[in-house]
Amino acid sequence: MKKNNLKKEKAVVLFSGGLDSTTCLYWALSKGYDCVALNISYGQKHIKEIACAKNICAKLGVKMQSLNLNLPWLEGATSLVGKNKVLPKASLKEIHNKNRLPSTYVPGRNLLFIALAASFADSIGATAIIAGPNAIDYSGYPDCRPQFYTPLAKAVKEGTSGALTGKKIKILTPLLKLSKAQIAKLGAKLKVPFSLTWTCYKGGAKPCGKCDACLLRAQGFKEAGILDK
Amino acid sequence: MKKNNLKKEKAVVLFSGGLDSTTCLYWALSKGYDCVALNISYGQKHIKEIACAKNICAKLGVKMQSLNLNLPWLEGATSLVGKNKVLPKASLKEIHNKNRLPSTYVPGRNLLFIALAASFADSIGATAIIAGPNAIDYSGYPDCRPQFYTPLAKAVKEGTSGALTGKKIKILTPLLKLSKAQIAKLGAKLKVPFSLTWTCYKGGAKPCGKCDACLLRAQGFKEAGILDK
Repeated sequence: MKKNNLKKEKAVVLFSGGLDSTTCLYWALSKGYDCVALNISYGQKHIKEIACAKNICAKLGVKMQSLNLNLPWLEGATSLVGKNKVLPKASLKEIHNKNRLPSTYVPGRNLLFIALAASFADSIGATAIIAGPNAIDYSGYPDCRPQFYTPLAKAVKEGTSGALTGKKIKILTPLLKLSKAQIAKLGAKLKVPFSLTWTCYKGGAKPCGKCDACLLRAQGFKEAGILDK
Repeated sequence: MKKNNLKKEKAVVLFSGGLDSTTCLYWALSKGYDCVALNISYGQKHIKEIACAKNICAKLGVKMQSLNLNLPWLEGATSLVGKNKVLPKASLKEIHNKNRLPSTYVPGRNLLFIALAASFADSIGATAIIAGPNAIDYSGYPDCRPQFYTPLAKAVKEGTSGALTGKKIKILTPLLKLSKAQIAKLGAKLKVPFSLTWTCYKGGAKPCGKCDACLLRAQGFKEAGILDK
């Protein structure tokens, strides 16, 4: 019996259409998971990512579940959502200062994303949640660190139906300890179509090249010696 | 200097307008917290609770933040949301069977509620989340147990801005180890207006008296020797 005739394990992949989550999706498929992508919009400015996400899922034949959240308290709490806030022009030195909380921090975002993925996974019988945070080049976000994901993984196992049935839901964060350069290398190895992914915090026709996300991506590709199309 | 002249600690209280969360809100106020109530609607049938929640907040002069979630995967995954599903007529014996997962289980609900409360708290500078699960009469829900809340509390502390600033957000679950009878007694002590609270899973003009929630409430008041108006 061939391995791919076995019933595959279902996974929910948190998927924005950016470089990291696209690499995660390709990673999950390469590991044999039966993937559903979960795309969450919370009013962020970089909605261009959503179009990229749809394209990539269509190319892969992966089903994408979209979700629109309207969280009134985010207006004013993060520069990614507020109407009048200006995205910061960061320098890489500032990004790597782990003691500052950048204005692009979205309060509770990754907790909320995992909670939504857990609710979705528990509803459809998926036993894995795959997410793409990385702790090395993490822009100073507290919710991109192992100190957060380790207890959260336990909470998800104990707080969903698997705690009773035995089929516990696990959280996989394959990029957590990788640098952007290592992610670019992994993406290249997995044949991720870099040109279809979107990273910039702004929603312009082309990436701005100046925001945290653009700077980190450019630095990663440069260090990896890979051309970013 | 009087104690109530000091700047109060802000708290987000997860508040449905039911007996348990109303008791939590009264408890939080009695402890001196500056409370904001967070009412979350996810398409559940008992929307009558929302009207009750508004009344109680108006009576107390507490601000209530409402949130409407549209989670497409819950349709069909729980009898509290699905259009065509029928609410079960449970017996108390069945309710107390901790090995069955009742059809009223909402996948990932409490994880999602805490995640939303954490995002809200982190956005407004609140350092406490107050929620009303109870592990004794818990209808067999995995997300009402200490095994779930203990690691989640750690994740919330580490995954929000307090991990960097030092003002970490704590989760308080004052009812976790109380029976319904003890909750009724606590509510009576705190002068909770029982007649304004709503417990029934159905949204009729009067409580049905037959669903899990009604049965547990009736049993609790009976054991406590308190008249439920």
